[in-house]
Parts: sequence; structure tokens; C-alpha cells
Amino acid sequence: MTEVLNDAHSATVVQTAREQALVETVVASFDGATDDRLRTILQTVARHVHAAARELQLTEIEWESMITFLTETGQTCTDTRQEFILLSDVLGLSMQVIGMNNPPVADATEATVFGPFFVEGAPHIELGGDMALGAPGEPCWVTGSVSGTDGAPIVGARIEVWEADEAGQYDVQYGDDRQAARAHLFSDNDGGFRFWGLTPTPYPIPHDGPVGRMLEAAGRSPMRASHLHFMVTAPGYRRLVTHIFVEGDEIGWKDAVFGVKESLIKSFARHASGPTPDGRYVTSWSEVTFDIVLAAADRN
Amino acid sequence: MTEVLNDAHSATVVQTAREQALVETVVASFDGATDDRLRTILQTVARHVHAAARELQLTEIEWESMITFLTETGQTCTDTRQEFILLSDVLGLSMQVIGMNNPPVADATEATVFGPFFVEGAPHIELGGDMALGAPGEPCWVTGSVSGTDGAPIVGARIEVWEADEAGQYDVQYGDDRQAARAHLFSDNDGGFRFWGLTPTPYPIPHDGPVGRMLEAAGRSPMRASHLHFMVTAPGYRRLVTHIFVEGDEIGWKDAVFGVKESLIKSFARHASGPTPDGRYVTSWSEVTFDIVLAAADRN
Ligand SMILES: [Fe+2]
Ligand SMILES: [Fe+2]
Repeated sequence: MTEVLNDAHSATVVQTAREQALVETVVASFDGATDDRLRTILQTVARHVHAAARELQLTEIEWESMITFLTETGQTCTDTRQEFILLSDVLGLSMQVIGMNNPPVADATEATVFGPFFVEGAPHIELGGDMALGAPGEPCWVTGSVSGTDGAPIVGARIEVWEADEAGQYDVQYGDDRQAARAHLFSDNDGGFRFWGLTPTPYPIPHDGPVGRMLEAAGRSPMRASHLHFMVTAPGYRRLVTHIFVEGDEIGWKDAVFGVKESLIKSFARHASGPTPDGRYVTSWSEVTFDIVLAAADRN
Repeated sequence: MTEVLNDAHSATVVQTAREQALVETVVASFDGATDDRLRTILQTVARHVHAAARELQLTEIEWESMITFLTETGQTCTDTRQEFILLSDVLGLSMQVIGMNNPPVADATEATVFGPFFVEGAPHIELGGDMALGAPGEPCWVTGSVSGTDGAPIVGARIEVWEADEAGQYDVQYGDDRQAARAHLFSDNDGGFRFWGLTPTPYPIPHDGPVGRMLEAAGRSPMRASHLHFMVTAPGYRRLVTHIFVEGDEIGWKDAVFGVKESLIKSFARHASGPTPDGRYVTSWSEVTFDIVLAAADRN
């Protein structure tokens, strides 16, 4: 034994065999899971966790740092903050899961990240109403249509919209009870919709926690490309969770959560002061059109 | 576009290309990390996270379950409980990291998991003293030696020992301030040591949290094989963190944290009531010998 292990090559062979044997033992330990899918998930995760650690030849100090990082990430989560979703977002995992579960269907509108700022029960506004509800920012006139992939208009589709104000904050981030820059409306008898929102501006994801520190250490920006969130639902159609992005945006493809897709970048026409399409008078405003195409529900 | 995507094969090709492109974008996002090792770690972790998610074709509901599991794991951690180390342990990651960082060196004693129950500043006992310090359990007479791989005795090696009592609990788990079944002693001028401990008994890892629920769902036992912890340090030698296990133990290789190694399984001779080697009179007792061989520090 001593002779064998003193030989560097043999020692490496022995070590590799031991490492692999441990992986197989761990994987086999999950064989007894009665739920097939749970067993597959645990075994796949175990294999990749070990593969990453072995590929890195992770040191004990690095392992400790990872334990600390994961612990702090969990402990940063509160009722109003989800740091593990943020971690998933900046690793592009959220986008990957969305992409896998919403594969391209004909010319249906593409999905992107849900984000942490959606709130159930946002106020209803009429067509042409103002979803800003007092949030500061440049008015933006949003018009568009909802249709199926066959081109038929979808009447009464529920359209949830939400966005950050010009300070880069969602209402829920203020910590008071304000409700602003979020609403829902319904498409009309031609599938059309129109409302006032705010011209989207870039904002940072919450970066005062472990994920923010990780981004900083990695030299990455926490900024999200300017965007307006949409969630569109209609009976018989796949739920669409997406954003529209602003053409020429300063962040654009450098979006911290990899949410930008070419098809979701829209031209926001800018207007100086003057009357708006519905006769309001403002200092400046923008307008954008977003024609939404929903995939049939049975495709997913 | 519509024609292409309506063809199932082409759609799969497009989808696979998109998934792979996202992985490459995420990996490239870390290119700017100034610390080479951090960049390597983040890029390797990102690749494996995506590989696992794609291999599983993880659903959005499963992704949510994982976020919840990780969040709860972090939130179960306290000053006296480390649920992420427990997760690492039951996935065999802790053993893998220990194995990689303590490769076999000649016939040096093998390492195993550190576990969460070591405490700095445990009391000093004399050679032949009792480390149980009032903890309930069958007395166990432990003798052995500490030497280098060249066979030379190591004088004055610091030997930390700790273990669970017969109720399967470490002192720190009682939540009072008791200090029991943990101590340190030093090897004598021949490298020898001897002390009274407790015959090790199996105990469950803390299983009332997310990791315990995971094990239960997977049909795995939370029990650890019976063991006595050792940490041995001496100037010029690699620190050894290990256990000895009990031959014929009811848990044995089914150890929840994959800590058992053949070379660490020891025969514990059982004795009925009678005088012990140092003249104590007890109802029953056991004895075991553990000869410890330390690798030179410069080998790691
Ligand atoms: Fe957002
Ligand atoms: Fe233990």
C-alpha cells in the first residue's frame, strides 16, 4: 500500500476512483425515493454538485465561503425580498427555466423573467386610463392588440402591467402602502388595448445583499435594462409573462438578469411638450406599440 | 419563421441553440472578474447549474420548489445550527471536499467529516482522564498512539475528542450551558494517549428542518453510524479531522453523511461488569485502540 501510494500517478488513479465511487454512493442513496421525478432531480443535482466541486478541486476554505454565501442569501429573504430568486436571475437560471417552459410557438410573443415585483390585486383601469397612479415619471402612451397565433383578436384578455418609477423604484420598495405604476385592464372587442404608463428607465436589482456583493466582486453591473412588465391571460391561451424593452437603452443587452430578447425591444417615440393623443398636456411624453400574440394553451 | 418553427425538429434545434447561447452569455458575464479563481468558480458553477436544469428540463413549479427549499434551508440556520452544512453533508459534498483536500498519503490516517458539533475551548484532561464529564453512556477506554508516516512517535500532539451521549445528543444540543463528552489531551513522550470516553451510539442528524424533510421524501434515514470524533494537530503535520466507527454497527455504511471509511472502523471490545484497566468498577464497558498516523504538513 505504501509503495503504491508513494507513486504519484497511482495515487492520482486511486484518488480519482475514490471520488467517483463517492458520487455513485451518493446517487444510489436516493434510489429508494418513491417519487420518480424527485429521485431524478436529487440524483441529477447530486451529480452536478459533485462534478462542479471536482472540476474546481474546491478547497475547504472555498467550501466554507460557499456555505456562508448560501446561508446569507437565505437569511436576506423576507416577505418582500427574495434573494435566492435574485441569485437565480443573475445566474441566468430564471431565464433558462422560462425559455425551456415556453418554447417558441409560431410567432407567439416571447416570454421573459417574471421578476420579484408583481403584486396580486393591482387596481383595474379602464382602456385609456393611467396605470401610473401618481408614480413620478414621463408619461408613456402604450397601445397594442392581443391576438392568437392565427391572427384572430382575443377579446377580454386580462393585461397586468407594472413598472418602476423614474427613481428606479417599484411602489412596494418604498415601504409605505402606496400602490402605483401597476394596474390591470382588459382588451376590447377588437383585441385592442391602450393605457398611460411611464417611459421605462433603468434600475438596479436590490444589490445591498449577498447577490449584490457577488456581482460587485465579479465586476458585473446590477442594472436592469429599461422595461415595462406585462402578464397576459385569456381562457384557452398560454399565460404570457414578458416585458417590453426600450430601443437604444443605455443598459440593453447588459441586463443583469439576461431578460432582453430581440423581439421584445420596441421603439419608444419621444415627443416634446404638447397635447397627447387623448388631449392631456404634458412637458414630454413617449409612445410605443406592443402587439401581443398568445400561444394556445394546449401547446404547453 | 412560422414555417420553420412549426416543424418540430427545427423548433428543437432552435430551442437547443437558444439554451446553449444563454449559458455562454451568462458565463461571459463573469469574464470581467478581476480575481481569476473567483471567475473560474462562478463560471463553473453557472455551467453546472444550467446543465442540471437543462438535463432535468426543470419546470417552473419545480424551480419554485427549489427556491423555497434553499430559502428555508438558509432560514433554518442559527448560531447553533448550520442547515446548509447539513445539506452539503447529506449530498456527500462535505466528504468529497475533505477527500480532495486530504488525498491519501502513504499510510496516514484517513480524514472524515468535521460535523457541526465541535466547540473551541473544550476542557483539558490528563492522560487517563474522563472526557465524558458526566455525559450519560457506557464507559469506553480509548488508547492509542500518534506517529508520523515514518513511524516516529509524535510527542505532545493535541488530541481533541468529542461525541454524542447515549441519548444521541451532543452537549450543545441541550440548550443549557453544559459541557460534556468533549475534551482535549496531549500525547505522552512515546506518542501514546489514553482516556475514558463513551461507547459511541448512533444518532440522527437534526432532521426537523428542510434537509430532514428532503431525506424523508427520498426514503433516506437521518441516522449517523456510531462514532467518536478526533481532531489531531502537531507542529509540522497536516491537521487530521476524523472519526472512529464501531465494527458491527447497526447503521454502518448507511451513514447519512457518507463519513464511513473501512480504515476507520474499529473493534470495540465489550466487557461485562467488573474492574476496568484503571480500577474503576462499572456495570459494563468497552475498549478500543486507535493508532493515529499524521501526514507531514508539506504534503498538502
Ligand atoms: Fe422590473
Ligand atoms: Fe458526530
